[in-house]
Amino acid sequence: MTIYNFSAGPACLPHSVLTQAQQDLVHYPGAGISVMEMSHRSADFENILHDAKTRLRKLANIPDDYDIIFLQGGASLQFSMIPMNLAPKAVDIIDTGQWTSKAIKEHQKCTQVNVIASSKDKNYTYIPKLDQALTGDYLYICENNTIYGTQYHQLPHAKHLIGDLSSDILSRPLDITKYDLVFAGAQKNIGPAGLTLVILKKSLLDQIDDSQIPSVLSYKVQASNQSMFNTPPTWAIYICSLVFKWLEEEIGGLEAMERINQQKAKLLYDYLDQSTFFHNPVNPQDRSLMNIPFISPNAELDQLFIAKAKEAGLINLKGHRSVGGMRASLYNAMPIEGVQKLIELMQTFEGEHHA
Amino acid sequence: MTIYNFSAGPACLPHSVLTQAQQDLVHYPGAGISVMEMSHRSADFENILHDAKTRLRKLANIPDDYDIIFLQGGASLQFSMIPMNLAPKAVDIIDTGQWTSKAIKEHQKCTQVNVIASSKDKNYTYIPKLDQALTGDYLYICENNTIYGTQYHQLPHAKHLIGDLSSDILSRPLDITKYDLVFAGAQKNIGPAGLTLVILKKSLLDQIDDSQIPSVLSYKVQASNQSMFNTPPTWAIYICSLVFKWLEEEIGGLEAMERINQQKAKLLYDYLDQSTFFHNPVNPQDRSLMNIPFISPNAELDQLFIAKAKEAGLINLKGHRSVGGMRASLYNAMPIEGVQKLIELMQTFEGEHHA
Repeated sequence: MTIYNFSAGPACLPHSVLTQAQQDLVHYPGAGISVMEMSHRSADFENILHDAKTRLRKLANIPDDYDIIFLQGGASLQFSMIPMNLAPKAVDIIDTGQWTSKAIKEHQKCTQVNVIASSKDKNYTYIPKLDQALTGDYLYICENNTIYGTQYHQLPHAKHLIGDLSSDILSRPLDITKYDLVFAGAQKNIGPAGLTLVILKKSLLDQIDDSQIPSVLSYKVQASNQSMFNTPPTWAIYICSLVFKWLEEEIGGLEAMERINQQKAKLLYDYLDQSTFFHNPVNPQDRSLMNIPFISPNAELDQLFIAKAKEAGLINLKGHRSVGGMRASLYNAMPIEGVQKLIELMQTFEGEHHA
Repeated sequence: MTIYNFSAGPACLPHSVLTQAQQDLVHYPGAGISVMEMSHRSADFENILHDAKTRLRKLANIPDDYDIIFLQGGASLQFSMIPMNLAPKAVDIIDTGQWTSKAIKEHQKCTQVNVIASSKDKNYTYIPKLDQALTGDYLYICENNTIYGTQYHQLPHAKHLIGDLSSDILSRPLDITKYDLVFAGAQKNIGPAGLTLVILKKSLLDQIDDSQIPSVLSYKVQASNQSMFNTPPTWAIYICSLVFKWLEEEIGGLEAMERINQQKAKLLYDYLDQSTFFHNPVNPQDRSLMNIPFISPNAELDQLFIAKAKEAGLINLKGHRSVGGMRASLYNAMPIEGVQKLIELMQTFEGEHHA
């Protein structure tokens, strides 16, 4: 039975990436050892790192005045590294759910936070509009909200914008010039857990006083050492390089990836919109292409549906506890067949259980 | 040609670990998906994490009053996390080389550091004796010094001892009760890069005021969340669990591992001690079982030897730039055949180039 993995993260990876990694796991071509055994200072690994960076720069159209760094600690550590490095007097944050709430909490340990807009009033089912003037040194947003299924389709205007792109990076073209800095945990659209990608304006680096920051947490140290201040997560970077290659060579780039993601999401939203049984609670204009939460008429039916889906090989469809119901994460690596199978099952289930 | 990888880290992994990981990479048994694709909240991954912890606790005889946590950021981040969490007024550090020098530098950003002993005067070729009274809140050491090939064979007496065990953890039995806290980057004796192991006295956790510490960097937060405050490096933890299984089931535990490591190191030291061509510069009592630096009569011959070794499949023998010459890292996963091949080559080379 083919398994379709709708996990919100760590999430499914492209099949060809996994088979390639499997083939080369014990003996990486030309090296005779595993990527996991390579010195990070070896020519073989330096080629892998260079390949990952170069492919990403080309794929996402990152200009030369932005630096790409590979870090550890997860997106959650960025909630602290950003204010530690940029040392703002105050920041503006738009609260769109659990991940911005965590970013607010960590920022507050270092600086003053203005929660400039929030959609908490409706359990984060929409992207709030900005109706206050910005007064902080930067505006912080989370582009796609995994738990609630919302996504920015137009970025707010801010002189200095910082974005958590953990759950939608590389799912569509990226206009990095709108941002001073973006970051993403790898485990949704990029690769395995344990790697965090940061893309930032090089001019920011000059402004950082890192004399009191742990060296590992200094963007300046990490950038000037090409992500090799200390041993990087070599295997995770290797898998990323394979994912970037897949995006470029098999998918055809981020415009093509976006079309596929739009097609997958449209299938499911169209079905949900005509259904009188399943329901998606999100404001239609703010719907995510990546994470689609939905509920059935009651919690017992939700549970039954999740169990039936698992039997059919459609796994990890349980919604987050703060939303309930189901959630289908349709990241880049989810094939359209997975979405079709899910909709077929939903149709059958609806036929059997509709009052 | 069989390749023997003498890298100081990331380093060789047991062959059976690599073949097992390869076999299960695409479809982990019972899950039908890759370990890299598993939600860290799934039962499958929770079993892997539990298995890793339980095996490690048994292997290294870690009593219940110590916690085991899996972190990110490398050993280098521990240089900061330790003083951030333990908030000492002052610390004593024994300087045995580059890694303690880095620990001193990072500690100095948070606290007062007393460099209580140092072997810098002889390029770190020995473990210095303590001849001052300890006045800091803890004594910090690096048990095995990768670059210089020194290792503590008797621990200094201190009420509160903290140890960097990155390059000798699990190479011999561990008496954790001598320590308040030990840590180790995984990429030498434990698994792939991108994972840091911390073992600490549970009673320390109660003393931590983490209200101003980034949550990811709080031992209290990480311990109370069973290393799952945020997404852990799942693949790296999985490989560790396989390495722990190998140590337990194929090697027969840490006493057996120590005997093998002693045997391997003795072969090379015995050869070096009778050679009038190759030379190990380390004080005999302080020699490391893990990393053995050696030089030939001159730098040109060193280079030639490294090239010849590479041709023979003996790779990554170049010494660290601060020591020069060669360095053979004989971590747990280096088979005795690798050491034998190296000595054979050294004998031949000595025969050909001895004046």
